Amino acid sequence: MPLSTLPVPNRWTRDQHTANMVSPENHTNGQATTLTPELTYFTANPKPTTLDQGLHQARTFIQHHASSNRRVALVTSGGTTVPLENQTVRFIDNFSAGTRGATSAEYFLQAGYAVIFLHRQFSLLPYSRHYSHSTNCFLDFMTANAEGKVVVEDEYQSQMSKVLKQYEKAKRERTLLLLPFTTVNDYLWHLRSIAEAMQPLGANALFYLAAAVSDFFVPAARMVEHKIQSSEDFHRTSAAAVVDNSATKLPAAHMEGKSLIIDLDPVPKFLKVLVDGWAPEAMIVSFKLETDPSLLAEKARYALKKYAHHLVIGNLLNTRKWEVLFVSVAEGENWVRVEQGLAGNGAEAGDDGSGKKDATVEIESLIVPEVARMHVMMIDNCASSA
Amino acid sequence: MPLSTLPVPNRWTRDQHTANMVSPENHTNGQATTLTPELTYFTANPKPTTLDQGLHQARTFIQHHASSNRRVALVTSGGTTVPLENQTVRFIDNFSAGTRGATSAEYFLQAGYAVIFLHRQFSLLPYSRHYSHSTNCFLDFMTANAEGKVVVEDEYQSQMSKVLKQYEKAKRERTLLLLPFTTVNDYLWHLRSIAEAMQPLGANALFYLAAAVSDFFVPAARMVEHKIQSSEDFHRTSAAAVVDNSATKLPAAHMEGKSLIIDLDPVPKFLKVLVDGWAPEAMIVSFKLETDPSLLAEKARYALKKYAHHLVIGNLLNTRKWEVLFVSVAEGENWVRVEQGLAGNGAEAGDDGSGKKDATVEIESLIVPEVARMHVMMIDNCASSA
Repeated sequence: MPLSTLPVPNRWTRDQHTANMVSPENHTNGQATTLTPELTYFTANPKPTTLDQGLHQARTFIQHHASSNRRVALVTSGGTTVPLENQTVRFIDNFSAGTRGATSAEYFLQAGYAVIFLHRQFSLLPYSRHYSHSTNCFLDFMTANAEGKVVVEDEYQSQMSKVLKQYEKAKRERTLLLLPFTTVNDYLWHLRSIAEAMQPLGANALFYLAAAVSDFFVPAARMVEHKIQSSEDFHRTSAAAVVDNSATKLPAAHMEGKSLIIDLDPVPKFLKVLVDGWAPEAMIVSFKLETDPSLLAEKARYALKKYAHHLVIGNLLNTRKWEVLFVSVAEGENWVRVEQGLAGNGAEAGDDGSGKKDATVEIESLIVPEVARMHVMMIDNCASSA
Repeated sequence: MPLSTLPVPNRWTRDQHTANMVSPENHTNGQATTLTPELTYFTANPKPTTLDQGLHQARTFIQHHASSNRRVALVTSGGTTVPLENQTVRFIDNFSAGTRGATSAEYFLQAGYAVIFLHRQFSLLPYSRHYSHSTNCFLDFMTANAEGKVVVEDEYQSQMSKVLKQYEKAKRERTLLLLPFTTVNDYLWHLRSIAEAMQPLGANALFYLAAAVSDFFVPAARMVEHKIQSSEDFHRTSAAAVVDNSATKLPAAHMEGKSLIIDLDPVPKFLKVLVDGWAPEAMIVSFKLETDPSLLAEKARYALKKYAHHLVIGNLLNTRKWEVLFVSVAEGENWVRVEQGLAGNGAEAGDDGSGKKDATVEIESLIVPEVARMHVMMIDNCASSA
């Protein structure tokens, strides 16, 4: 049966042999002869200069935890950028402060996971997120004591001590690896490489894909080198020379009269490739962010069916701090909600990860144990069917 | 003589009467009968909900410092966003961590200015910038002492004590006002309102426009409400319904086949309006960021001539931490450079504002005193010609 017509499999009991059958390599050697965008992407778009170093760190980290049979979660976080120029002044971005990812990473660590935190550079990080932004500037928590030493003010001691202890535990036990990305190209190269490096973990690997990844991008061949000059501002013939002269389409960003036109290609759908080829034994959780409530459930179901992975967590931009929708083959559709009156100060206040008081509940404290429970069940099924 | 054909004036001695002659009100009442984009912008694009509160704070701040004859700098910082949907998932952004603005604000405070810091939400802030990012996470500077209290480690005491003292001085003397923006529309509304509120300061007002402001935007009338659905991902007829049905053009962002097309309008050139109408007596400094060295000086000169303000500071993306080009009518062209061997770790390390060691020189420590010197000279000229 060709891959594209496979029904949604019950992947909780999927066996290793079948998984390998549909890996990209076999697919290429077998019936598929056309070069899909997924297959050509990594030859057409250059490897990030930071990849080798990050991958080296990831391999060391994974080996360390594989040897102790610890579960390892790859948590992706923050939005990817789509640069409009090689020397980037302008870019397209996806809304995400990284709150979901950074908060979830803390709860995965609490649940005993080792966490590779693949995050947008300068987005929120586990632990430091509690003091990251202007509404919670850590300098406001500091004071000079009688001896002139800078210390944390008494009233903030207990909260900061708790955070610092968790942070230092993660450092001491080497359970948290921070790897940054900026562009969607950085992200995709890292995702592929880390996924392949995680294969020795087998079912102990979890992919928790909370990053807001661009659906559209500028292929390297259609990227201009320098900042695009607005014709109104500076009358010079187009500085938008395309780097690769073999490109037949116009540069992705160019002036038409006084307007700037940006023409973006779809990003190949790598979730399918991840599920079938890069991470055949892992549990894979994706997120679906929508703004229109009438689309959410339908789009989450659609994604689960299309990519045949394990769990889609749907959320709406305006209510994502209080409720999310779990959609899985194993358990159907379930809302996870923070009990009324316990939620934080709402989406706006929570954007910076600082809107929550001790008395309130972070929804990630409900999401992560649920995901971990499903993951353990999957690991047990794998073990019993082996 | 109509405004548009005025030669570059020597604004150091420009008299108040002439300045008022070319304010937008007179311009509207006088010879200009066509509605320019600058005049229609604020009726066509809605007032941000946060404006009134920010403006109230700004007025109180300005009155306080006007009464003591203190110089006041409006420092703008960080990149503006251009949302592609009203419920924003995707947006266009301009590269800027806010390092230039946040660092300059500290040196203006040191130079005796009161500073209104109009900044992109979550970009770097004066003082906290020293510990803002992952490479300098403040939790790495903390430890628990013998009594279990969280304190700053000894080796970081001196640096943090210095920063904390400056921060607390600014709070105590109420010389620093932080006002955030996100979109280019937020920015423009704030700039106009604050500029008008600063008029009572006369020549004591300084505009230091370091923010990276979008040259292109999506007018409110061409904005879609919900996240744009990629046709490949979800087959439903366009969710890209334009909010204002009177719009005759297509929504600014829409699908064509598998491509996303974004069609952006130019942002009106408000620097001219600021110079002539909103801030007729103030010193105005703009920045020009380029990536192509061959364009920098020419573009800086062009901007100075076009907007007839006081100083353009030109900088290149790759060298902006070590050298900038001052272009002014009063003093011509001068490079300001950090002495070799004293610069920080380069553009990359400096992006997060933390790449500088105590031994190195921040270029803003050279820029700001130069600007302040020119500003004082302008104030003196105004006083002597009055």
